[in-house]
Amino acid sequence: MTNCPFCQTDGGELLWRDARLRVVLADEAGYPGFCRVIWHAHVAEMSDLTAAEQQHLMQAVFALERAQRKALAPDKVNLASLGNQVPHVHWHVIPRFGDDPHFPGSVWSSPQREIAPTALSARRARLPALREAVVAELQNTFGGAQA
Amino acid sequence: MTNCPFCQTDGGELLWRDARLRVVLADEAGYPGFCRVIWHAHVAEMSDLTAAEQQHLMQAVFALERAQRKALAPDKVNLASLGNQVPHVHWHVIPRFGDDPHFPGSVWSSPQREIAPTALSARRARLPALREAVVAELQNTFGGAQA
Repeated sequence: MTNCPFCQTDGGELLWRDARLRVVLADEAGYPGFCRVIWHAHVAEMSDLTAAEQQHLMQAVFALERAQRKALAPDKVNLASLGNQVPHVHWHVIPRFGDDPHFPGSVWSSPQREIAPTALSARRARLPALREAVVAELQNTFGGAQA
Repeated sequence: MTNCPFCQTDGGELLWRDARLRVVLADEAGYPGFCRVIWHAHVAEMSDLTAAEQQHLMQAVFALERAQRKALAPDKVNLASLGNQVPHVHWHVIPRFGDDPHFPGSVWSSPQREIAPTALSARRARLPALREAVVAELQNTFGGAQA
């Protein structure tokens, strides 16, 4: 689709990919470690995928959640597949902290605060560990396929 | 957990349940057909479940998505597991329409409009069909377990 950003670009810093999907690190203000799992093919809904494809995609989402928990120790992980603006299946996998800009609201809610620069720096410093954990968890889940 | 609403109540109108989870119809203003899949046990994250439990839960989520598409023909279905306020695994399965209060934003974003009373009435009139479709899709997915 020529007007779909997930058909035209990786959609973020590529951390892992296989034949069906990719995992990218997003660049969302206040949210170091915000990742997405993007299905390569342009389909709108999870129920447009086969059961095997759904399972493969969710295994990647849950592997990514495990990697975020290991590398970042968030207070909560948020998972969402919305696609109202970009109807191409993609999952937001978002490490949440009590002092992040929207907690306990969703990241799409009205912001409640600015994140402290020291907290932001500390989380950014964990990104190398997150990149390693993502690759390790996905290889552990699926075997050797790699970006 | 005595202070957890999903441990204390069904969390909505019960449409289907089995030994591990239940599907409820929520009562969210402007969103007839908004459903939730709630895991019975009080666990916070999807990665706290076993792979078999994760798969069972997501099969229910996707069955519910199919039921909403069949009964309501939404423009998009939104899926989300957040749990920042209630850290007990539950999935929001939300039929979205271009004229609903927040489209194309998330349902947690700032509202953009009021839904027209005629559109709201028309969607409410589909709730009996949705209840039937939910039971049919879940029985088709899992067999005869029933509320």
